[in-house]
Amino acid sequence: MDYRPDAGDARFLLEQVLDAPTRLRALAPFAEVDADLMGQVLDEAAKFVGAEIAPLNAVGDAIGAHFEAGTVTMPPGFADAYKAFREAGWPSLACAPEDGGQGLPWVLEGVLYEWLTGANHGWTMAPGLLHGAYECLKHHGSEALKARYLGRIASGEWLATMCLTEPQAGSDLGLVRTQAVPQADGSHRLSGTKIFISGGEHDLTDNIVHLVLAREPGAPLGPKGLSLFITSKFLDGGVRNAIVCERIEEKMGLHGSPTCVLRFEDATAWRVGEPGRGLSAMFVMMNAARLHVALQGVGLLDAAWQKAHAYAQERLQMRAPGAARSAAEADPIIRHPAVQRILDTERGWIDGLRVLAYHTGLELDAARHHADAGRRQSAQRWCSLVTPVLKALCTEQGAGGASRLLQVFGGHGYVREWGIEQHVRDARITLIYEGTNEIQAIDLLVRKVLPDGGAGIQALLQELAQDVDALADHGADTAARLQDACRLTQELVRASRARAALPFEAADDYLRAIGLALMGWAWHRIARAPGAAQGRWTGPRHALDLRVLPEYAMRAGIIRTQCSAAGAQAA
Amino acid sequence: MDYRPDAGDARFLLEQVLDAPTRLRALAPFAEVDADLMGQVLDEAAKFVGAEIAPLNAVGDAIGAHFEAGTVTMPPGFADAYKAFREAGWPSLACAPEDGGQGLPWVLEGVLYEWLTGANHGWTMAPGLLHGAYECLKHHGSEALKARYLGRIASGEWLATMCLTEPQAGSDLGLVRTQAVPQADGSHRLSGTKIFISGGEHDLTDNIVHLVLAREPGAPLGPKGLSLFITSKFLDGGVRNAIVCERIEEKMGLHGSPTCVLRFEDATAWRVGEPGRGLSAMFVMMNAARLHVALQGVGLLDAAWQKAHAYAQERLQMRAPGAARSAAEADPIIRHPAVQRILDTERGWIDGLRVLAYHTGLELDAARHHADAGRRQSAQRWCSLVTPVLKALCTEQGAGGASRLLQVFGGHGYVREWGIEQHVRDARITLIYEGTNEIQAIDLLVRKVLPDGGAGIQALLQELAQDVDALADHGADTAARLQDACRLTQELVRASRARAALPFEAADDYLRAIGLALMGWAWHRIARAPGAAQGRWTGPRHALDLRVLPEYAMRAGIIRTQCSAAGAQAA
Repeated sequence: MDYRPDAGDARFLLEQVLDAPTRLRALAPFAEVDADLMGQVLDEAAKFVGAEIAPLNAVGDAIGAHFEAGTVTMPPGFADAYKAFREAGWPSLACAPEDGGQGLPWVLEGVLYEWLTGANHGWTMAPGLLHGAYECLKHHGSEALKARYLGRIASGEWLATMCLTEPQAGSDLGLVRTQAVPQADGSHRLSGTKIFISGGEHDLTDNIVHLVLAREPGAPLGPKGLSLFITSKFLDGGVRNAIVCERIEEKMGLHGSPTCVLRFEDATAWRVGEPGRGLSAMFVMMNAARLHVALQGVGLLDAAWQKAHAYAQERLQMRAPGAARSAAEADPIIRHPAVQRILDTERGWIDGLRVLAYHTGLELDAARHHADAGRRQSAQRWCSLVTPVLKALCTEQGAGGASRLLQVFGGHGYVREWGIEQHVRDARITLIYEGTNEIQAIDLLVRKVLPDGGAGIQALLQELAQDVDALADHGADTAARLQDACRLTQELVRASRARAALPFEAADDYLRAIGLALMGWAWHRIARAPGAAQGRWTGPRHALDLRVLPEYAMRAGIIRTQCSAAGAQAA
Repeated sequence: MDYRPDAGDARFLLEQVLDAPTRLRALAPFAEVDADLMGQVLDEAAKFVGAEIAPLNAVGDAIGAHFEAGTVTMPPGFADAYKAFREAGWPSLACAPEDGGQGLPWVLEGVLYEWLTGANHGWTMAPGLLHGAYECLKHHGSEALKARYLGRIASGEWLATMCLTEPQAGSDLGLVRTQAVPQADGSHRLSGTKIFISGGEHDLTDNIVHLVLAREPGAPLGPKGLSLFITSKFLDGGVRNAIVCERIEEKMGLHGSPTCVLRFEDATAWRVGEPGRGLSAMFVMMNAARLHVALQGVGLLDAAWQKAHAYAQERLQMRAPGAARSAAEADPIIRHPAVQRILDTERGWIDGLRVLAYHTGLELDAARHHADAGRRQSAQRWCSLVTPVLKALCTEQGAGGASRLLQVFGGHGYVREWGIEQHVRDARITLIYEGTNEIQAIDLLVRKVLPDGGAGIQALLQELAQDVDALADHGADTAARLQDACRLTQELVRASRARAALPFEAADDYLRAIGLALMGWAWHRIARAPGAAQGRWTGPRHALDLRVLPEYAMRAGIIRTQCSAAGAQAA
């Protein structure tokens, strides 16, 4: 079965749980965005994704992108689907009206890309970097570069890539060696090899734009010597630029997305922003990019869940415990506790992670557009602290949860025809790209929590604890967990003074603990919403309380053991 | 890099940790098996597996088994490797001397197949069912059937399959429909379709033997109507039997093993054992088969670990925290805590799981061959209770741990050339076949723990607690965990009386809790062995204590929450 986005669920979470229309209308550019408009956009998006993109998922995997003599042919149907996507205006959904965009909030684009990924991860990689390139160029590009590229990126007429990784430089971009030699006309000549370039070559658009990290002659070693450049497959007048696609990778999954090795052979390029400021120019869009990856995890998990749920309703095996005797030899496996447990637990993850990710999307919109500087700052704090948590939490669950949902199919889950094993293979990359989950954990603890002595995250956690209704069901537990996470942060801050390596050793557990504390809050929000006390929300909520949230105490215990050891070592 | 079995590790665990030579020499058939002989067998096995089988792993995945017009061609090199395997006498390692076997203990065969799987899971599927077919036929076959088949199965001249699953009958074999109609000459005619038949067709041997579950006319519905039959691709005189390979499955992994759909069109077959006793004839070898699958998980995890460990020593990225300043721009990633944590934790799992699995293999040998009936019974108790735990624990860790080890490679782990993603894809099936892990959990709790009110498992856990040296490092914790698992069992037994569905709801958590309690004991045994207090064992042991064993308390807490709810509901 193909993935079918559920616009009703998204509307419920955005409107009833997160009060999105009110929050968005408070931002000047979105004064016209009410529940009706949001609902229309979501309904249309769900329809488009389900009808045009989802049916191409299996063929994208089975046939894949094809490389021959420097060119890449995309799987059958991908180009037509992209044409339809572009003509319907989806690429420019969240671009500014002055650039030809529709000026809608980021959060709606986030939901759109979550659904696209659930429907067809491989296809979605192609337009997936458009908006990042748009933001990067809009904020840092010269007027000349904007005139050449911005409108075409906003409209999706030309697709875009990010060229960061090199064979010797992955997580450590400071090791990048690609050279950019300035020319008399203000352009640069790029030379070097970039790897893992998603959509580095394809036949979806007439031209392909590349944003490339490189080093000018004489620039210092390390990250501070890096600048950002823009270039494209074709230059003005249709002249072919000296950019060669050497090959595409054979991968575990994501076969619908060509992962290219690109060789720049004195390719003509232009610098975007100041010299030596390449990383910061790129990182302007980092939170949005990471949140997109988090939502990919959610989309893939939901796609796997839909398949497993449908299968469990139809597959008959054994009598369920306590089932009423009937003429049937066997019951649908959804009535077996072992299967129900998997479905409810993963559903609990999906719903809770959506609340956190959509809330973060709304904060991203507030950080950009709120009139009040203090409110912008608190929104920015949320995005900065929570985005790495979500990137790791959602992708870990996307891949791990999809694998658990595969289990519902028994042996049938392992064969291609049911489609669930493709989700597991596709999802695995999300734990790695856009910064590995281990890098996310270090980003959270070492770069964001420790520098202010934990003040920022403690303030955030306290605000959530105050948002909790202690009298509601599980309210006291939820608040207590958030407050314990504050204390845990303090203990970790202190112990890190005794052992410099501790933050690196405890980072993964800390990220996970914070994530679980946030999940408790998210489900508390859901449970308070009208209508969520019964029906389809009760099973997942019970599963989350019973089986997921207890991990918080385990992680906190592991961190405290490490803090004690660090203290004892120092004493 | 190809997998290289480490005979030194196996010898250390068997000799120093588990006292295997003494235990085996106490069994009459193994009176000659001393440490030297075991060492020689292990050294030879390691050499053979590393030289002949491991190098074919990547080609088996990339090219895979090929189906055309009813026949299957195995990947290049597979047939020669099988010929070498057979000529070296490996198939008959643990077969009885009177059947042409070498009469060595099961535990050595277990280690051999662990290594074979780590080296090449796909190839290993081919001989993987030989020994099970041998045991089944030896115990239940008539003299005529033994004369026809037993020696050729023991020697591996003919390979063997198990034909259980049908489209409508997976976990629920009671739904099997294949018919076996008796003939005047004492044979039967088989008709029906079997799916998921590993090695149902191939070009490795001249003939293929099938053990088939089927139903005679008039047999009762459900599992009690099933009988076991033996048949083969060719009958006496080279006559082709009416068995058609319809197709092979396209799977997530394990491409080197053809997973066949077999259609029986009035195929000539003979019943093995009594009518209606098909399942029990097959289940005679169930513990051994499940332990083999557990060891597959361990082998795959070790193969993934070897790759990740080698990569982490060579890959340079970023400065490690606290690293001495040097001219190098970056340190090997093995010096980064985030990477070390993954390597140490998975190593801790591998070593601990090996102790448990090898100990279980030794108990399997004792259950078969010990002179003392009481000792045979206690060995049987161990195998019966611990085998389902290990099947689930080892395979969960095999697939999940391989995926975590993939993370060490960053983006390189996602591309084919490093080989680690193949292990993740291959390993995924082990959570499903030979009874899904959910079925293992139900087998443990519902079929084995509850029927005697928990007495058997409590006795087993108490004996382990008494084996623990409370004065040794972590000894008190290890004993306390085992004793808590006893109390937990009692609580679950009581609460299950109040809520009949509870055992099915709590089974997975219970299996996991028992598994973790056993892991604590296993590492306690390792730590007590000479030389294991330092060197390569310390990092994994620390990781296990810090990060793995705390899950016990979490699982116990989840179970207790369920027990309380069941009690409250009943009250």
